[in-house]
Amino acid sequence: MIRHTVMFRFKESASPEEISAFSNGLTEMAPKIDAIVNYEHGSDLGVNEGNFDYVVTADFADLDGYTTYRDHPEHKDVIARTSHVIADRAAVQFEWQG
Amino acid sequence: MIRHTVMFRFKESASPEEISAFSNGLTEMAPKIDAIVNYEHGSDLGVNEGNFDYVVTADFADLDGYTTYRDHPEHKDVIARTSHVIADRAAVQFEWQG
Repeated sequence: MIRHTVMFRFKESASPEEISAFSNGLTEMAPKIDAIVNYEHGSDLGVNEGNFDYVVTADFADLDGYTTYRDHPEHKDVIARTSHVIADRAAVQFEWQG
Repeated sequence: MIRHTVMFRFKESASPEEISAFSNGLTEMAPKIDAIVNYEHGSDLGVNEGNFDYVVTADFADLDGYTTYRDHPEHKDVIARTSHVIADRAAVQFEWQG
């Protein structure tokens, strides 16, 4: 399987409402994209210093599944509506034996 | 469950042998730490520009499981042996319904 992982830091100016809209946007998007096998996301728990603020881990049967998600209009719509709260982003896609 | 996610960028000076030693160190460590429920890791597939080079996703039953792993001597040993190849690191721990 392919696992897509992406972390975000929010801008200091991002309000709790904007961060909720970001998180809710992901929750509402996931069931609309058939290529997604598993979709987990959430805020950093605050256990360690220096962490990013938010992470998504998403599993796909193969690389085509991931690129279908990446380029899907529902995904692009969430990005367009919420990317103004993002200060930094880090991502990796890797293969694993799911 | 608690999912720990951590990404790495390797130094440009890191050799393929050093990166293999890093990856193999994680593979050999995981079965020695009972608190780990799932442990997946791998190199970025190179599909997107600007990605980090490597990622670990690790699941634990609860936060105590994660901190047991974080502070475990086998984990600290891998860090001590391989951290010289790391240029940058990004991490998030989050809660999900496993």
